[in-house]
Amino acid sequence: MTSMPAPADRLTLSPDRLLPADPGTRAIARRLYAAVRDQPIISPHGHVPAQWLADDAPFEDPASLLLSPDHYVFRLLHAQGIPLEQLGVGPGSTPDTDGARHAWRLFCGRWGAFRGTPSRFWMETVLADVFGVADRPSAESADAIYDRIADALGRPDFRPRALMNRFAIDVLATTDDPVDDLSYHAALQQDSGFSHRVVPTFRPDKYLEPARPDFPALMAALAQASAIDTGSYAGYVAALADRRRYFKDHGAVSSDHSHLDVVTLTLDDAEATRIYSDAIAGRVSPQDATALRRHMLVEMARMATEDGLVMTLHPGVHRGHHTETTRRFGPDTGSDIPVGVEFTRGLQPLLDEFGTAQGFHLILFTLDETVFSREIAPLAGFYPSVYAGAPWWFLDAPDAVRRFRAATTETAGFYRTSGFVDDTRAFLSIPARHDMSRRLDAGYLARLVAEHQLEEDEALETALDLVTTVPTTAFKL
Amino acid sequence: MTSMPAPADRLTLSPDRLLPADPGTRAIARRLYAAVRDQPIISPHGHVPAQWLADDAPFEDPASLLLSPDHYVFRLLHAQGIPLEQLGVGPGSTPDTDGARHAWRLFCGRWGAFRGTPSRFWMETVLADVFGVADRPSAESADAIYDRIADALGRPDFRPRALMNRFAIDVLATTDDPVDDLSYHAALQQDSGFSHRVVPTFRPDKYLEPARPDFPALMAALAQASAIDTGSYAGYVAALADRRRYFKDHGAVSSDHSHLDVVTLTLDDAEATRIYSDAIAGRVSPQDATALRRHMLVEMARMATEDGLVMTLHPGVHRGHHTETTRRFGPDTGSDIPVGVEFTRGLQPLLDEFGTAQGFHLILFTLDETVFSREIAPLAGFYPSVYAGAPWWFLDAPDAVRRFRAATTETAGFYRTSGFVDDTRAFLSIPARHDMSRRLDAGYLARLVAEHQLEEDEALETALDLVTTVPTTAFKL
Amino acid sequence: MTSMPAPADRLTLSPDRLLPADPGTRAIARRLYAAVRDQPIISPHGHVPAQWLADDAPFEDPASLLLSPDHYVFRLLHAQGIPLEQLGVGPGSTPDTDGARHAWRLFCGRWGAFRGTPSRFWMETVLADVFGVADRPSAESADAIYDRIADALGRPDFRPRALMNRFAIDVLATTDDPVDDLSYHAALQQDSGFSHRVVPTFRPDKYLEPARPDFPALMAALAQASAIDTGSYAGYVAALADRRRYFKDHGAVSSDHSHLDVVTLTLDDAEATRIYSDAIAGRVSPQDATALRRHMLVEMARMATEDGLVMTLHPGVHRGHHTETTRRFGPDTGSDIPVGVEFTRGLQPLLDEFGTAQGFHLILFTLDETVFSREIAPLAGFYPSVYAGAPWWFLDAPDAVRRFRAATTETAGFYRTSGFVDDTRAFLSIPARHDMSRRLDAGYLARLVAEHQLEEDEALETALDLVTTVPTTAFKL
Repeated sequence: MTSMPAPADRLTLSPDRLLPADPGTRAIARRLYAAVRDQPIISPHGHVPAQWLADDAPFEDPASLLLSPDHYVFRLLHAQGIPLEQLGVGPGSTPDTDGARHAWRLFCGRWGAFRGTPSRFWMETVLADVFGVADRPSAESADAIYDRIADALGRPDFRPRALMNRFAIDVLATTDDPVDDLSYHAALQQDSGFSHRVVPTFRPDKYLEPARPDFPALMAALAQASAIDTGSYAGYVAALADRRRYFKDHGAVSSDHSHLDVVTLTLDDAEATRIYSDAIAGRVSPQDATALRRHMLVEMARMATEDGLVMTLHPGVHRGHHTETTRRFGPDTGSDIPVGVEFTRGLQPLLDEFGTAQGFHLILFTLDETVFSREIAPLAGFYPSVYAGAPWWFLDAPDAVRRFRAATTETAGFYRTSGFVDDTRAFLSIPARHDMSRRLDAGYLARLVAEHQLEEDEALETALDLVTTVPTTAFKL
Repeated sequence: MTSMPAPADRLTLSPDRLLPADPGTRAIARRLYAAVRDQPIISPHGHVPAQWLADDAPFEDPASLLLSPDHYVFRLLHAQGIPLEQLGVGPGSTPDTDGARHAWRLFCGRWGAFRGTPSRFWMETVLADVFGVADRPSAESADAIYDRIADALGRPDFRPRALMNRFAIDVLATTDDPVDDLSYHAALQQDSGFSHRVVPTFRPDKYLEPARPDFPALMAALAQASAIDTGSYAGYVAALADRRRYFKDHGAVSSDHSHLDVVTLTLDDAEATRIYSDAIAGRVSPQDATALRRHMLVEMARMATEDGLVMTLHPGVHRGHHTETTRRFGPDTGSDIPVGVEFTRGLQPLLDEFGTAQGFHLILFTLDETVFSREIAPLAGFYPSVYAGAPWWFLDAPDAVRRFRAATTETAGFYRTSGFVDDTRAFLSIPARHDMSRRLDAGYLARLVAEHQLEEDEALETALDLVTTVPTTAFKL
Repeated sequence: MTSMPAPADRLTLSPDRLLPADPGTRAIARRLYAAVRDQPIISPHGHVPAQWLADDAPFEDPASLLLSPDHYVFRLLHAQGIPLEQLGVGPGSTPDTDGARHAWRLFCGRWGAFRGTPSRFWMETVLADVFGVADRPSAESADAIYDRIADALGRPDFRPRALMNRFAIDVLATTDDPVDDLSYHAALQQDSGFSHRVVPTFRPDKYLEPARPDFPALMAALAQASAIDTGSYAGYVAALADRRRYFKDHGAVSSDHSHLDVVTLTLDDAEATRIYSDAIAGRVSPQDATALRRHMLVEMARMATEDGLVMTLHPGVHRGHHTETTRRFGPDTGSDIPVGVEFTRGLQPLLDEFGTAQGFHLILFTLDETVFSREIAPLAGFYPSVYAGAPWWFLDAPDAVRRFRAATTETAGFYRTSGFVDDTRAFLSIPARHDMSRRLDAGYLARLVAEHQLEEDEALETALDLVTTVPTTAFKL
């Protein structure tokens, strides 16, 4: 990048960040934001390990805390030409202190690459608000910032539980394997010194993909966890239902599903039984495997009408687009790329059967913005069960969030949405992410007030609802 | 929703509603809007029954006037968990007075659900401007508002014709079945005391869908209406052409078409004859039926080049997504959901043949915003016959309208568009809908002026054209 | 259009054109724009013939200079009902002076049709800045403007080289046929009096489409140009590699590819050999031809990793949508219409093999905006080889550019983009196009500053980078 004198090398956070530029609209937005800024955080979907809170061990170092768990950050550094191995990405890749400091320097030296990205907003919030960093990241400031963070991480008030208190996170949902014993969740629930609600989420994706080479092994694990014989389709279904109940008993409020598409269909029992038998024998055809997975999504909905778990769908990702990266660094290492998705036809069989079922909740997320106004909002504006989920992943960013509100509100209003979902493993960024959302909603509502589409008292009530009753209603919290 | 004190329980309409928030841009927008605000309304596509105007009977009650004919309203109430039967939706579902009042209370109690939706804008305009309601709808104000409206409806100045005068609706198009005798239209045209132009629209959808179970019966009805034997394909085509001429003779300016897609193709005569014979014998295959429908769309274009009717296309809706709702309440009861649509390839055969035909007009509407910039604007920016239709249905809302202008103008300008189309059966909301459009176009043009893309005199001329010559040209009025 | 008094019949260009309306944001944008306004132009992809600069002959007349080479302009006039033959469009269609004046009158009389389009912005910039026209185009002013331009074109300072100096175009890329001998480029490079860099671009589309009826003839031409026998697949590949090297030796930095889709796949050698043999024998099946074309795109990538040419993809156009227009006026005469495009799955085979290859650059352009946030930005935010290309063709317009930045920056930042590409044959509009881009980027960055997402020094650096290091890095200049 062009070399220029940097008149401002300080990191300072304006109180007006992300609020609309127009002075009149900003004044309204400030008042709306002030009303929600300090509301406790409800995080009904995310990826923080419960173990972090159960163990309450200090975080290791700045890089393994802030870089290697954040795929938004390391993927863009990778695009800048930095190999993932230098960033501590992937299983077993805990860099030593030198490696961590090196990774941190690489990141700070590429701070400009993050201009205009939400990672920039989240990271500067973490640096300034959590660690009191006052210097803008750069090659020059990297070591000093690293040392300041590393020093803080050694102190008790930077342990996970202390931060959870400081962040005022009332509810935190994790994402868990169906055979997980949820012992960390149980430990937290039984810990009288821990007052936050940490709930598991039932995430059965791989147990619903009969084409996986490890499907027979997964079925064996499922049988062991449920003590139900999964040698037959009926046993498979019963075992899944059993694990859902186990999760529910441990506080779960939702199941989460992320397949390539959301096509649904219903197989008759004989057909499902036949395909399942082929699958555990390792000889299922791709077509049959897909059919059974689509059928099982309907089964999940059926179970939801019985056990009451909210169903969330996160479809439309081509996982592991770059084979070599996945092979070397494992899944979720930056090369997952969205594809188009279709909800209207795909979900019709499921919604035809359960769309108006008492108590059924189905929250739709997407990486394909085209369905916000075309499919998700119209579905959420008719079916009592359907909620428009918050902007997800690449779309959880200021302009995308504005597009989401502009694309869904006119058809579904504010009250058919799920509320904000941070969906992150980057624990320290959770307040920054919710703060971003609150600022953006304040700005959106302020515009409606400035354009006389809403009165300010209504906007204020809506802003508060969006961080209180809206998520607690959608997620049954 | 969170309970809060309501500092403002009044319903007041700002003169600046929907105008841009930036003061400089708003000042320009005010001037542009002032120039078009009181222009007569041209409504070239809608769903008001001609009978309402022919009979000029008083409207029944607030609910059957404002709720049950408005699928935007009742679908969102349904999503809020209110059963449709409590809202008087569906054929034969005229609630008694108690039912109407109950429905009205349900609606007013859920007023917050409509925040940020166009229904909110339209409804508050109707309440305040048409009925002089000064209270914001709520559970508390519901009865008083109901009584005020009910009282007004008993007065002569709230009958359909009086309102049509008050609303200054110069042209109103209805939508009609090809076998309709158009007697109400004829009565209005012969009524010397009625000075408005009420024109029918030829809507042959179901007569072009050979896969329908009732297709043979429809062909019988078509034969009776046209006095042409529809026992053969040639007769079928002749009968349709005859009914188009009948509509034209009764003032029609357009035919309207809404199928799942807009794929077109040309069958040779033998093939069309064969498929048609299968269809009236009740043994047509789905593939053949689709092929004949696609062929008939080209036939409609061919007839349009002969009789001069403008052709409008409204594709891409999955009708009756929720089977049980359709079964119980009939069609158009809220569960119609958009799907993706494709124009470029689909219309190529039709446009290759008639795209530059003298006098042919083809207006394209969509619920799939992705085609605005990708397909519709490029088509309308080349073919003299193609016009970009106004934002339709779910997209007829402030932010969507802004997106429409932003997505089409740069490629097609303002003069390859159709002008505003209200497309509504909610008679009382027609002025509010046109007013919304005028405010939004004023705001869009004002921004172009503020950014020095246009001079204000050009913007003023354009704003006027958009409510005068643009629709009269596109619709041949 | 409605007849109105025209209070302003002058053509004046505000210094604030296209800058944001909000005064605070505009003040920032002015500062950013001031810093880049006079930077030299880098034009790494376009369609100006090198011969114009080599010959330095005077331009003919206003119409053949400003109308007939500009498909944006003549297609919208065609949509207004003006036959292409009256506009001098198509091969061999150089109108005489009377024809040129007539075409110019038609254009000026329809000036209103261009309101809100980028053609309006470009044309008024050319008229005012290049020719000093002070009257707004209209039927009345047409002749005077024509005469002013025609007069200027006769003067030495309006010859191509003089204009290139005046426009400060440092680098200009042309687009060339693989068998072109590039003699004009060679002449320019050897001309000590010509200090600009004019580089060819290798555009092999038709040589990669085995289904073309003229494919055998094209192979013969390729053989002649390369002196390599193209009678076999191996020879075909070798000849293409040879021509790429020839282009590279003549200064080329990139190859450009525009097919209907960007699906890629790898054939084994035997299969490629078989299909190629069928193709030169004129008996290739459509499926095989498509497969070979998709395979050859991967071959182009492989060659790029060897010769270092940057690869640019411009997919998703249905060429010659109106057969009769293409037949009468040739290709590129206005009826090319976009279709949807898919990158994630289509490019996976290519990127799986070369996505992280050292030095490989792949720049993705699109006419389908939906892929900006869904596919292009996520790809460019992971693969070091992938760059998000500037908004292309219909999308090279103010609001579309803003949507592009809003859709890509949050995922890919500014530094994974290609910089602006004017892609034009309208030589005189090149400065206007780059100026538009600079104004829009200044406005976008100013908003980020106004919303406290960036500090102004960072925005200033970014604005400068976007017209200097960003294009030189992406295009290896």
